[in-house]
Order: sequence, then structure tokens, then C-alpha cells
Amino acid sequence: MTPSPVFDGPRLIARLAALGEVGRDSEVRLTRLAASDQDAAGRALVAGWMREAGLAVELDRIGNLYGVWAPEGAAGDPLVMGSHIDSVIDAGIYDGCLGVLAGLGAIEAMIAAGIAPARPLAVVAWTNEEGVRYAPDMLGSLVAAGGMEVETALAVIGTDGTRLGEELARIGALGPRAPGFLRPHAYLELHVEQGPALEAEGLRLGAVESLQGISWTKVRIGGAANHAGTTPMAMRRDAGVAAARVIAGLDAMARATPGAVATVGTMRLAPGAINVIPALAEFTVDLRNPDETRLQAQEAALAAILTALRAEGYSVATEPLARFAPVIFDESLVERIEGAAARRRIPCRRMTSGAGHDAQMMARIAPAAMIFTPSRGGISHNPAEFTDEADLIAGAEILLDVAEGLIR
Amino acid sequence: MTPSPVFDGPRLIARLAALGEVGRDSEVRLTRLAASDQDAAGRALVAGWMREAGLAVELDRIGNLYGVWAPEGAAGDPLVMGSHIDSVIDAGIYDGCLGVLAGLGAIEAMIAAGIAPARPLAVVAWTNEEGVRYAPDMLGSLVAAGGMEVETALAVIGTDGTRLGEELARIGALGPRAPGFLRPHAYLELHVEQGPALEAEGLRLGAVESLQGISWTKVRIGGAANHAGTTPMAMRRDAGVAAARVIAGLDAMARATPGAVATVGTMRLAPGAINVIPALAEFTVDLRNPDETRLQAQEAALAAILTALRAEGYSVATEPLARFAPVIFDESLVERIEGAAARRRIPCRRMTSGAGHDAQMMARIAPAAMIFTPSRGGISHNPAEFTDEADLIAGAEILLDVAEGLIR
Repeated sequence: MTPSPVFDGPRLIARLAALGEVGRDSEVRLTRLAASDQDAAGRALVAGWMREAGLAVELDRIGNLYGVWAPEGAAGDPLVMGSHIDSVIDAGIYDGCLGVLAGLGAIEAMIAAGIAPARPLAVVAWTNEEGVRYAPDMLGSLVAAGGMEVETALAVIGTDGTRLGEELARIGALGPRAPGFLRPHAYLELHVEQGPALEAEGLRLGAVESLQGISWTKVRIGGAANHAGTTPMAMRRDAGVAAARVIAGLDAMARATPGAVATVGTMRLAPGAINVIPALAEFTVDLRNPDETRLQAQEAALAAILTALRAEGYSVATEPLARFAPVIFDESLVERIEGAAARRRIPCRRMTSGAGHDAQMMARIAPAAMIFTPSRGGISHNPAEFTDEADLIAGAEILLDVAEGLIR
Repeated sequence: MTPSPVFDGPRLIARLAALGEVGRDSEVRLTRLAASDQDAAGRALVAGWMREAGLAVELDRIGNLYGVWAPEGAAGDPLVMGSHIDSVIDAGIYDGCLGVLAGLGAIEAMIAAGIAPARPLAVVAWTNEEGVRYAPDMLGSLVAAGGMEVETALAVIGTDGTRLGEELARIGALGPRAPGFLRPHAYLELHVEQGPALEAEGLRLGAVESLQGISWTKVRIGGAANHAGTTPMAMRRDAGVAAARVIAGLDAMARATPGAVATVGTMRLAPGAINVIPALAEFTVDLRNPDETRLQAQEAALAAILTALRAEGYSVATEPLARFAPVIFDESLVERIEGAAARRRIPCRRMTSGAGHDAQMMARIAPAAMIFTPSRGGISHNPAEFTDEADLIAGAEILLDVAEGLIR
């Protein structure tokens, strides 16, 4: 019997810190946008660590970076772990990098323990998860899951006018492999929560069983501009008041609906003068729910509020901006995560991911699940992003435990 | 017994049209800003009509333009009628001009009828009522009422960097008279309503008994920016939702409070991203009421909503932008207007002015009241501003009737 593998926690922490120094600008802000020179430097560092671990480093035609361990006796589809190392502008050091470096560390732990896996293992850093420079986000995993043609993805034009394919070629990130050349036996992704739930409940681990569905809509409500002093309340059609009713209605609906969140993050009133009744309110609505039926109910609630406003004489126009159905992760993987947490006595609960992740693309083609570690204050996409070292290591140990159970 | 004076309606209509052609720009927009070349041309036209009528034309040191009729036997303080001929940008032809030209026409009618007034009569075009180029608005009448020193007013710098005193001198609008050299026995101002109330009720005349008090406040509500997907409803401090509660609360309060109006005309959410919970909502609040106690109750309602938000953890800052107490016009003058309307069988009601007018400055030093004619669709400060000719003339006839009753 081989000894149990032991995860090297301090090395993970040191690598997170080292990778977190790659891509600092003159103001010491961490900005490692996909396919940039900073991304290239990060990829070189991670690929070097993969090689040092004895993994075969592979690149596919959309720049996804794989480290594969396929020792003699390993057969069939690989167990894949991963995440991304591209970042937003002025980012923290954990988002994405944790999942890549913990996946690498898990394989290293198994190698060090002399484990002979029944199937190969791989760790992946997916291209352009954040979507800051090139749309859509989660592009590399989307292509690997067969959701977008490689040529289409390579032709994407970025916010800076560059072409993704040319930039990936320029930084040497394009390889010969067909995206999807590795079809995962199962896919596991460790990630920081990017929300406040675990910390607020005093938990150290989340077994992510689903990923919220998202419904984005732009709403334009037309009322009647008029003098704020001379127009009696009963004769007004104030588009701002109508927008306030939408905001309040969605907020109440979300508070009353399990799993729901609703956000109006942008608002424009026109003409926008202190003494003129708004003739136009233009705003965005972000509705999310891990349950498709409930998400549809939220959308219906929005539609009902808008219908009532139309009946009062407002003009209402809506424009769908995005719609993704919820993703349900693999139940047996979620149970394995819970079981591993129980064995290590780490306080854990099942939860939903509010943000999008590469794991949702892998869930299209393989059993997939995610492990969350707490985010202090729920802060993410921000240099203040922080997770306790002990929690980072605990999350990596659970990843290792679950991965080991799947390759025995 | 002298015959009753007859108001020359067609001449009023023709003069409104003629004055309305003075100050058209290359796009045929009417823009006659205070102390501009366009204002000078308008003043020349009106002063010419005053002289043709046999009036003594006077200018004071802030450019207020007076036409005075003081025939033998007239003694004491004059009855003053007036308004303004400066305009907003892209204006209609009635706002202000109606009150000046109807006042002139009323004096002409009395002269033509051979009336021997017991006291002088005067018509005034006040400087810079609109306040578009120079702040504050109603500047000329404010100075005449003793509310601002002449030297202070002349030193006001305009939005275009010019000094009001230099511009008035340049266009020849400065005279030797001390502002306030005419202390009105009473002041009457005919004006278009600039609101929809008269038209909506099928009335043709308003006896304006008061002018709303105004309370303007800028409000900044601070919440917590967070990820719109990962932050549960119960853990949010959404500044946009807080702002929506303020808007809805003020709207409900105003609908339940006699005479009240409430408007939130501007709104800014920050950071202003579709998937980020607003951390900041910055907006303006415009509260009005003709009753000071009720206006204070509206202000207290705003304060109560903001206090409740503070108790929920929001940070709230307010900045007072403007505060004017309501003006109550002279009851006996309002009764005279109502009586005149009844005698001519013109449907009339008492009402409040939602907008500011020169009459509120005159009310500081003399009995004052206003007469309103309907504004189609409530539209004003807009080239679509329109009042039926019959209503314009009816309003002028009431002005004449009331004026005649005051100088017998």
C-alpha cells in the first residue's frame, strides 16, 4: 500500500505569491490580461513548474496550457484539474491561479507519494477566462468544450483592437493540439468564492453543486419630461419613479425567492436636470438563480412590473443582453468533496457559484464540480482579494483527496 | 363718465409675434439671453412701443426698463405691471413677453378711453429673469426689491465669463434711476402657466394666490460595491435600492400631501457596471409646496427616509442646494382677479405657481398677484410653448380690468 499523498502547502503559498508578482505595472497593480506580455510571463512561470514536476507540457490551438502526467499503467481519459491565470485589471493574486497551482500541487503530491494512477492526470490553465480583453469570457474552456470554433475564437477582436489569434501567436502560446484533445474523465476546479457567504457562516470550504443561471436585460422606460414645479403629481409620468418601482420590485422578489439575486447596477435619467421630471430611465437588470424555473419566475416578475408600467402610459423597451441557463454540477463529485471535507473535519457546505467559471464549460462534456475557499469580505477582482493561507491549503488538500479517489 | 377701456387684442398678438422674431439664431431658434445683443434688440422694440404710447421710458442702474404713465392728477405710488423679455435658449415666444406687452396694452387702453388715473401706472421689463446667462434668476426684480445691492448684481460673472454690468453698459441698457425708484402701490403680472393644470381642467384663467416654496438637496448614499452574482440579497448594501426607496417614498409623500410635488431629476450610480452592486447613488431632490409647514413636512419625510437608511448601515450625506420659502400673494388682489374673471364669465380658479417669477420679488415690497393663462400640454421653455390667442387676450383683459379698478 502506497502512503497517502501529502500536499505541500508552503510551496503553494510561495507559488501564488511568485505568480502574483508577474504582471505588475508601474503603479504596482497586478494586470495580467489574456494573451498579453504579462500573460506570457505568467505562462512561462507555470509551464516551468509543470516541467520541473515532470509533466508533459502541451498547448492547444487556442492557447490552453496543459501539464499532463500519464505514467505507465495509466489509461483512458484523464482526470483534469484547472482554472486560469489571466486576470482583470488591478487584480488580486488568488482568482484562477489558486485552481491551477493547487491542481499542479495535487499531481506533484501523488507523484511524490509514489501513487500509480489508473488514469492520467492533467492540470490546465485555460485561455482568457476573465474576458476583460477579449469577449466572451471563459473562451478557452468554451472552445475546448466544443462550444465555439477555434477559428472563430482566434478571430476575436479585443478591446484594444488586437486579434486574439495574433496576440496568442505573438506571445508563443499557440500549440498544435486540438482544443478538447483531452476529454476529461472528470473535471475539478478549486477557486476562491468571490462572495461573502462562507466567511459569514464561519465555514472554510464550499462544495459547489451548481452555478447560477444569468439573465441580463437593458430596460428603457419612457415617461414625460415636464417642469418639476408646475406639474402636479397626479399628472406626471416620471420615468425615474417608474425605474424606482422596478428596482424595489426586483429587490423584494429576489429576497422572497430562494437562491435569487437581482441587481440594477447602471442607471441613466434624461434629460437629467434637477428641476425637470425624467422623461427617460435607462438601466440594466442582472437576475441570477441556480434554479432555471425560479430564474424564469424572476424574469416573469420583471415582465409583470413592466407590463403594469405600460398600462399606466409609460413606454417600455427591453433588450436582452445575456442569458445563460444554470449549470448543475455532478452529484457524485459534490458528494466526494463533502466526504473529503468531513474526513478532514473542515466545516463545509454545499453552495452555488454566483460567478461564471471554466468548470461550467467542462460540465458540458464531463462530470464536473468546484471547491470554494472563503474570500475575506467577499472581495474579489480587487487587490484586496484575500483568503487565509490555512484555507487555501485546506482547499488544495480537499482537491488532492478527491482527485486521488478518482484515479485509484 | 368715461367709457370702459377696451383691450386691443390683435395688437397684443402681433407684438408677441414681432418680439418673438427678435433673437432668432441661424437655426431659427429664439435665444434672447439677458444683456445680449438679442436682448438689446428686444429692448429697443419694446421701448419704441412704450414711447409710441406716450409713456416716459426709464432705465435704472441694473437695466430694468420702465414705461411710466403719470398724467396730470395722478399721484402717489404707481400701479406697476410687468414681467421680462429675456429668454432661455431655444425658447417660446410667450414666457415673460406676455406680461410686459399686456401691461403696456392695458395702459394704452386706459389712455385711449380717456381715463384719468388717480395714481401713475407703469409697465416694467425686468432684467435677467431667466438666469440662464447670469445667476441668480429674477435678478432685476430682486435688486429693485432691495434684495441685492446694485454693485453686487453688476459684478455678477456669467456662464460665458462676461460681467453683467459691462454687458448691460455695452448694449446701452444702464440708466440713471435707482432700482426701486418706483415703489409699487400694487404689482400685477400676467404670465403663461408653464404647467398643465388649467388646460387639464378646461379652465382659461388662473388667479395665482401663492408661489411654491422650493427645497433643493443633493443626496449621496454610500453602500457596498460587490459582485452581483455572489452576494446574497441578505448581505447587500445596494445604494441603488436605497435610492429607489427615497424616490418611491418622496413620490408617495408628495401624492398624499396637499400642494406638494417631489422630483428626483438626476441620478448617478457608481461604479456603474451591470454586474456590480452600486456602492454609491448620487441624486438631486426637488421638493415644492406653497405652504411652508407642508414643505417642512416634506423635508422631514426625506430626512426620515435617510435616517432609516443610516440605521441600516448606509452612509448618507446631504448638501442643501437651494431653499426658498413660499410666497403668499395679496388676498385682495387675488379676489379682484377672481371678480374680474367672473364678470367676464371666464372659467378661472385659484392656483399656485410652481415656477419662480418677478412677482415674488415685488411681493417683498408691495401687494402683488399674478394671472395665469393656460399652457398647451404644460410645455414651456421650449419652442412648442403655446397659448390660444383667445386665452392670451382674455388674460390681458383681466389684467386691464384689475388695473383699472386699482387706479380709479
